[in-house]
Amino acid sequence: MDQFAVTFLPDNITVRVAAGTSIMEAANQAGLPLKSTCGGAGTCGRCAIKVQEGKVEVRGGHLPARLREEGYSLACQTMVMGDAIIAIPPESRLGRHQVLLQDKGRLQDSLTDLLGSYPLDPACSVASLVLPEPTLTENTSDASRLLATLRKEKGLEGQLDLVFLQELPDSLRQANWQVDVTLAAGSNRLIRITPLGETRAFGLAIDLGTTTVVVSLLDLRSGERVMRKGSYNRQAVYGDDVISRIIHATSNEGGLEELRQAALATINDLITAILTSGGIDPAEVTAATIAGNTTMTHLLLGINPRYLRLQPYIPAAAELPVLKAAEVGLKINPLAPVQIFPAVASYVGGDIVSGALFTRIASSEELTLFIDIGTNGEMVLGNSDWLISCACSAGPAFEGSGITCGMRAMEGAIEGVSIDPDTLEVELEVIGGGRPSGICGSGLIDCLAKLRRAGIIDRTGNFQEVATPRLRTTDEGPEFVLAWATQSSTQRDIVLTAADIKNLIRSKGAVFAGIQSLLKTVSLEIDAIERIIIAGGFGNYLHIPNAVEIGLLPDLPPEKYIFAGNTSLKGAELALLSQPAWQESLELARRMTYLELSAGNLFMEEFVSALFLPHTRLELFPSVGNGSGDERRSG
Amino acid sequence: MDQFAVTFLPDNITVRVAAGTSIMEAANQAGLPLKSTCGGAGTCGRCAIKVQEGKVEVRGGHLPARLREEGYSLACQTMVMGDAIIAIPPESRLGRHQVLLQDKGRLQDSLTDLLGSYPLDPACSVASLVLPEPTLTENTSDASRLLATLRKEKGLEGQLDLVFLQELPDSLRQANWQVDVTLAAGSNRLIRITPLGETRAFGLAIDLGTTTVVVSLLDLRSGERVMRKGSYNRQAVYGDDVISRIIHATSNEGGLEELRQAALATINDLITAILTSGGIDPAEVTAATIAGNTTMTHLLLGINPRYLRLQPYIPAAAELPVLKAAEVGLKINPLAPVQIFPAVASYVGGDIVSGALFTRIASSEELTLFIDIGTNGEMVLGNSDWLISCACSAGPAFEGSGITCGMRAMEGAIEGVSIDPDTLEVELEVIGGGRPSGICGSGLIDCLAKLRRAGIIDRTGNFQEVATPRLRTTDEGPEFVLAWATQSSTQRDIVLTAADIKNLIRSKGAVFAGIQSLLKTVSLEIDAIERIIIAGGFGNYLHIPNAVEIGLLPDLPPEKYIFAGNTSLKGAELALLSQPAWQESLELARRMTYLELSAGNLFMEEFVSALFLPHTRLELFPSVGNGSGDERRSG
Repeated sequence: MDQFAVTFLPDNITVRVAAGTSIMEAANQAGLPLKSTCGGAGTCGRCAIKVQEGKVEVRGGHLPARLREEGYSLACQTMVMGDAIIAIPPESRLGRHQVLLQDKGRLQDSLTDLLGSYPLDPACSVASLVLPEPTLTENTSDASRLLATLRKEKGLEGQLDLVFLQELPDSLRQANWQVDVTLAAGSNRLIRITPLGETRAFGLAIDLGTTTVVVSLLDLRSGERVMRKGSYNRQAVYGDDVISRIIHATSNEGGLEELRQAALATINDLITAILTSGGIDPAEVTAATIAGNTTMTHLLLGINPRYLRLQPYIPAAAELPVLKAAEVGLKINPLAPVQIFPAVASYVGGDIVSGALFTRIASSEELTLFIDIGTNGEMVLGNSDWLISCACSAGPAFEGSGITCGMRAMEGAIEGVSIDPDTLEVELEVIGGGRPSGICGSGLIDCLAKLRRAGIIDRTGNFQEVATPRLRTTDEGPEFVLAWATQSSTQRDIVLTAADIKNLIRSKGAVFAGIQSLLKTVSLEIDAIERIIIAGGFGNYLHIPNAVEIGLLPDLPPEKYIFAGNTSLKGAELALLSQPAWQESLELARRMTYLELSAGNLFMEEFVSALFLPHTRLELFPSVGNGSGDERRSG
Repeated sequence: MDQFAVTFLPDNITVRVAAGTSIMEAANQAGLPLKSTCGGAGTCGRCAIKVQEGKVEVRGGHLPARLREEGYSLACQTMVMGDAIIAIPPESRLGRHQVLLQDKGRLQDSLTDLLGSYPLDPACSVASLVLPEPTLTENTSDASRLLATLRKEKGLEGQLDLVFLQELPDSLRQANWQVDVTLAAGSNRLIRITPLGETRAFGLAIDLGTTTVVVSLLDLRSGERVMRKGSYNRQAVYGDDVISRIIHATSNEGGLEELRQAALATINDLITAILTSGGIDPAEVTAATIAGNTTMTHLLLGINPRYLRLQPYIPAAAELPVLKAAEVGLKINPLAPVQIFPAVASYVGGDIVSGALFTRIASSEELTLFIDIGTNGEMVLGNSDWLISCACSAGPAFEGSGITCGMRAMEGAIEGVSIDPDTLEVELEVIGGGRPSGICGSGLIDCLAKLRRAGIIDRTGNFQEVATPRLRTTDEGPEFVLAWATQSSTQRDIVLTAADIKNLIRSKGAVFAGIQSLLKTVSLEIDAIERIIIAGGFGNYLHIPNAVEIGLLPDLPPEKYIFAGNTSLKGAELALLSQPAWQESLELARRMTYLELSAGNLFMEEFVSALFLPHTRLELFPSVGNGSGDERRSG
């Protein structure tokens, strides 16, 4: 088949692909993944590129007329038919290695604080043994000899895998019968045998997010964290959110395996990078923990995810057996135990359980609301006596998706907006300080608050008739210009449309309705909440008074809010270092009541009430002003 | 690379192979495996073939001058350099599908007798369950739902494998929540899920011998045997005995994997043939047991066998965990539990333990000698109070190997010999009744007894000066012609040489010395033995008085001898059908004392005394005559 050279600008990276390959695939091959929420169906319009030169065939796809006129087409619908030069605009690019590793979180991140009162009792340990040498008259097998010594010296009943046995004879003799044995905690499965001495044992805590993946390497003997590294989840090319990925997995032949391999490639590349830079052999990594939402866990393990998205939303498995690295596909010691956090339900997953473990919400008498806002708003309410959880489909708006000029919180994203109440002129805060290329979640929240405060939109989110050239009407309806093309890095106006605003209001309304549903189910009011812990990367940029002002979060004093950062990762680190913590996570998942919001009318009633700024029932937001132009709050 | 057509006669099978391929490999490819004991090194001389036509390159190899002159060369040393026609003489051919499945054994073979007092409690069982359907408010995971129902209805704590979970969601819904679950006994691992109804469960008992492999399929629900099928172990191309295979495995890159694959191919082809003819899906085969000697077990599992043959002869593992079919490589349900019989030592393996289980030697107060004569003579002495075992290196003479005209007990093999005391003329009994092509183990024993009785050899095995054209001297020493070229199917004289006789005497001496060593270790005499159980295919053809006459077996009345047939296979069938029997086999292996014959001088002294016909100490063989020409016994 004919092969053609495709060069991507501005990176100037060239790949050779077969005729008929989509630009989407070619970009992937070039290591320049593009945004996509539709899995290449041509409907989301996120992967716009510009063909500078060369022969391509454009099949179609949904793209605004003005972009089409400017020469843009969708990468997933543009097929290579000859050598070509393709420009990727920054807003179409799936940023790389921009994943936040350090948190602004107020919950401390040091190792002592991570462990707290949990003992250092890691997922695997090393036992040093001196075996009696065999003779003609004392000729029991290598395996029996090893197990007997382990029993005698350490009181442990070791378990043997075939893979371990295959190499055992040479290992014992090369070590002259003086060995270190690495054992999995709990099962006492033998993982590794090395000459007695300075045997190292490392473990990986993995936060497998829908959008980002972070891997943390810990030294299991000292308990010290060695390194963290993160990147975007390569499954993103099959869709931005869990629903589109489940659809890809279940409606395409081999789709599940593609998603599994994409997740594994993401994780394994991070592992390889960490081990290479640390000078660590994969065989030395003898344990792992993984925290991810239920869909991510199913996809990583190749478990059929079809019924996660169909009523009544049933996971194949919530609690999983401790697997071996080789079964999962992790490029570490093949026998390393892999502890995967249990889920509570299809949309309250292991990442939430891990976060609940790390934040100790079940160890405190204080009534705590733990909340993680992403595509879904997942939340847990409770204390040491009870826990109740739910998930509301917030949509990806706060992650910048489904918003005309939305983007993730990375360089070039507008994260803050000021609007002069008199001139209605706009000042922007941009991540990195340069020209803006879009607007991220915290920017959108700020924008919504400021537009209302300036009277440009009313409480329903509708644009008002105000005198500013920034408010204009297009074929697709009214929109507000945040940055003119001359100021932006994309050479296009950055706008917020009426549809974007409706979208944002639905998102914030869903989150608040989720919180209200939990409270009503246990017959409590907002005032009863003693602290609110905000998890996830979103929390790092979130401005609480703005979030309260638009009615996303409850109207409680700022001191009750705690940013906890990546609690999913930190819980996974904790469970890696301490078996009692891991056991507790299993308990937590079993104890947590799950409120299915689609059962009954409670959530829907709360949702409809929440589709106002801040809410239809203003008494729920006593600190928020009533109307437009209200400037009493200092942004 | 150039490909040439090689046609094998008389089968007229043609294969295409690359230039430089050995005739040995080409024959293998054609499904016509040849004999070999040296693993293709050109030293054993068993794979002689005749190039009828075509271009080949003969590299060398050890072959008697007279065969070379007749146009023979060694298949392993003959390389294809063009199209060729090759004749395979019957004596070079590794017979196929000639494996004995029905025994002459006196121990009955019916299923009731197989189980005896053990209950039918197979390696896996089927539980029928009706699960409550999930709803929005009762939305626990599929796995939890299944395990909870299993716990409630059957009181069992099921264990889940990843492979099981991957398909669970569809399986449950396709069965409309009414399912049969197949569970492994002991572990309660879930193997299979099917719609509630007539779920079948089959199991395989596998006798993995060095020479032959037999697979037996049983219906685990009724306990009935469905079919048995056997063939030669394809590992034979890498050497006839365990030692040459261990050498191949440990001195060639990839050698162990070659042996593993050869064993798996042998087993899996038998499995496929059985399942195809029985109309059984591999998924329906949900358990297996394997009995093999220690080397076979190591090689099948890819476990380094190096130290089995190096002093002090230590196995990597004697007792093995219950594995899964996928780990072993069996083409049945990947989650089927595979119970592999434990070994006692490097040369007393799982086949002996299986035989000891089947023959109930540990359940009787009678002092029993259990003996399996192959390349090694393996034997167990004892009763319900104690058990002691040993293995003596008998060499492969009784299997026809290492004997000039030796062959296995198959069509064309001389199995009996009569010598006229006056004329010294010979009459032969040939398996199948046709022309002879060689002589098998029972024939060799008979021959030795008759040669001595006719005065042709003396008690040391040396030829005497007697007047018959059958006794002649060649460059390689004296030899006795059993069949002239004109009578044989090979058109060559079938002879027994002086070297063959020495070889046979060493073999029989080793077996008898082993028996004596066991007896002396426990301070008992031959008379104390109350029964002798002869295991293995060899026993089917063995004529006890002859075996006693040459001093192979103890001089006890024939009624104390019992032929038990393939006890390894029958023990494997028993352990497949009854978990208490399987548990007992583990106990048996632990209880059995192992006497290492190479430690101390006991065995060597006994061996030297046994290098006479029947023995230096004639008082051990009161029923055997003293000299030549003694015809008081009726053969």
